[in-house]
Amino acid sequence: MKRLKTIRLLHFLFFIVLLGFMSCEQPAKQTATGQTETDPLPSWNEGSAKQAIISFVKTTTDPNSKSFIPENERIVTFDNDGCLWSEQPMYFQFLFAMDRIKQMASDHPEWKEQQPFQAVLEDDMETVLKSGVKGLLTLTLTSHSGVTTDEFSNIVKDWINTAKHPKTGKLYKEMIFQPMLEVLDYLRANGFKTYIVSGGGLDFMRPWTEEVYGIPPEQVIGSYGKHQFEMKEGKPQINKLPEIEFIDDKEGKPVGIYRFIGRKPVAAFGNSDGDLQMLQWTASGEGKRLMVYIHHTDAEREWAYDRESHIGQLDKGLDEAKQKGWTVVDMKSDWNRIYP
Amino acid sequence: MKRLKTIRLLHFLFFIVLLGFMSCEQPAKQTATGQTETDPLPSWNEGSAKQAIISFVKTTTDPNSKSFIPENERIVTFDNDGCLWSEQPMYFQFLFAMDRIKQMASDHPEWKEQQPFQAVLEDDMETVLKSGVKGLLTLTLTSHSGVTTDEFSNIVKDWINTAKHPKTGKLYKEMIFQPMLEVLDYLRANGFKTYIVSGGGLDFMRPWTEEVYGIPPEQVIGSYGKHQFEMKEGKPQINKLPEIEFIDDKEGKPVGIYRFIGRKPVAAFGNSDGDLQMLQWTASGEGKRLMVYIHHTDAEREWAYDRESHIGQLDKGLDEAKQKGWTVVDMKSDWNRIYP
Repeated sequence: MKRLKTIRLLHFLFFIVLLGFMSCEQPAKQTATGQTETDPLPSWNEGSAKQAIISFVKTTTDPNSKSFIPENERIVTFDNDGCLWSEQPMYFQFLFAMDRIKQMASDHPEWKEQQPFQAVLEDDMETVLKSGVKGLLTLTLTSHSGVTTDEFSNIVKDWINTAKHPKTGKLYKEMIFQPMLEVLDYLRANGFKTYIVSGGGLDFMRPWTEEVYGIPPEQVIGSYGKHQFEMKEGKPQINKLPEIEFIDDKEGKPVGIYRFIGRKPVAAFGNSDGDLQMLQWTASGEGKRLMVYIHHTDAEREWAYDRESHIGQLDKGLDEAKQKGWTVVDMKSDWNRIYP
Repeated sequence: MKRLKTIRLLHFLFFIVLLGFMSCEQPAKQTATGQTETDPLPSWNEGSAKQAIISFVKTTTDPNSKSFIPENERIVTFDNDGCLWSEQPMYFQFLFAMDRIKQMASDHPEWKEQQPFQAVLEDDMETVLKSGVKGLLTLTLTSHSGVTTDEFSNIVKDWINTAKHPKTGKLYKEMIFQPMLEVLDYLRANGFKTYIVSGGGLDFMRPWTEEVYGIPPEQVIGSYGKHQFEMKEGKPQINKLPEIEFIDDKEGKPVGIYRFIGRKPVAAFGNSDGDLQMLQWTASGEGKRLMVYIHHTDAEREWAYDRESHIGQLDKGLDEAKQKGWTVVDMKSDWNRIYP
């Protein structure tokens, strides 16, 4: 389990970011009766991906369709890293971990001469990565424990509202995908309940997902460490311990969905092999289902990577999607806009 | 962790059930302006407990009140055993476990001469209980694993729709508390999200809570064992393994709430010391909060037990409720009706 998480952190890939925004506004369509129908997905170019999403929503919410899905069963799950926001050159949560180590360093003067902390403080990424599984795990656990859940939530909120991405200079919370925000809104407007199901930390996502995606904390499923309830001076608190308890990735995703939701999703969106089991689980339900892979194909406006990438690798999933006719979104051609 | 669960199963207490239904219909009230105001809690007698619930809902949903709570924060948690349905003479889930062992016996001829199975098959409760922690754990894990989650869900549905309580002769799902159904409805009608947070099994409750309480699976938190994702003949399934992973009782309740909901409840209902930490956690939130203990005081219509009971013991909780001014519901005097 630990290996899974740390393998994902092993390679730090640098890409040059050339951001070219193409904000093509889509004109409102005329329906057969001459009425104007507002495009629910204006950042999506016309094509099979957009069509698949709209057709899914229309047929499953039409009471006269045999694909109709009752509202209480309209559960849709989304991966977060690489699906709702960017994940390059490194999962943003690991960049948070590095910032947090720097923030904690004043209480740990010994870190100046202790690896892998020293390398973090000196921005020596090569040495950080050379510290291997053990070093990266030490950094992750150290930066994510030793505080109460309330304290950690405030630490994350401070970071998400101020920290900027090393390449784009944007706040991380601005590096979310406008086309996916439209999908979230469109689904919710049609009675679907939108969930995040991410390998990222539950404690790390919940402080900001409601503001940024409109997804409340109770609809965010993620990895988590041990939590300990304690009465301290007559007040209860929950402490974050330096031990991993659940990894919400690969086989963990359907298990997390089963435990937290208890229903099979009717649609699921992912972008990597880590989402494959979630998509398989979704596809195995009876009735109309929608499985979507976001394929990172746009090196100019975002990043381009798939089969060989150590972050968000998409290899087996791409084969299975083609074989089974799942929807694969080509970011370069399907999206006329990346960030809001 | 295992000890906690099994201690709860150790003693089998027999009470004589004298059911005397007192269905007193409450007349509709006249408001100051002469309009009729329907009583949202007709099975509750007038008194401080009913008043506390109604006053909480009125003040926290009034936008002009300084106790106003925004709708997305209106999370209320309920224990299940002894709070929403009865739990005597034994947690109903353990009675399910015994029935399930009998059902499985045809595939296990060796059980006829193997304890503690033999005792279950012979309805020899004394020997079952003498099998101690190890024996009871064996029965619980055996009856709750070795199948997929889909199979288990169907097994539970069959049982809940047919099995009858040894003393009342009612279906277990009919031994739910009418006054609590009214509280659930009243809260939901006022924008509160109602959750179950129970020491009982998540897999055991979810197949029927939506039908019986109007609480969907994604709002049911409970104990659970290990789950394993597997592709079998090209179809994904989740297997239930014979190992406990999380006990949602005592300190586990706030941890479960934190993980599954990620917000502090604004109100919580329990009936035993197993709910104390959930009530403490709820009480520690800022603003108006409602903490309620259901006190089983009615030996005629249900059961009467508290400090000395091995099922649903209420001892420390009763002291803390009195000390802190939490609401304690006296089932005998506060409820004019027990079951629907």
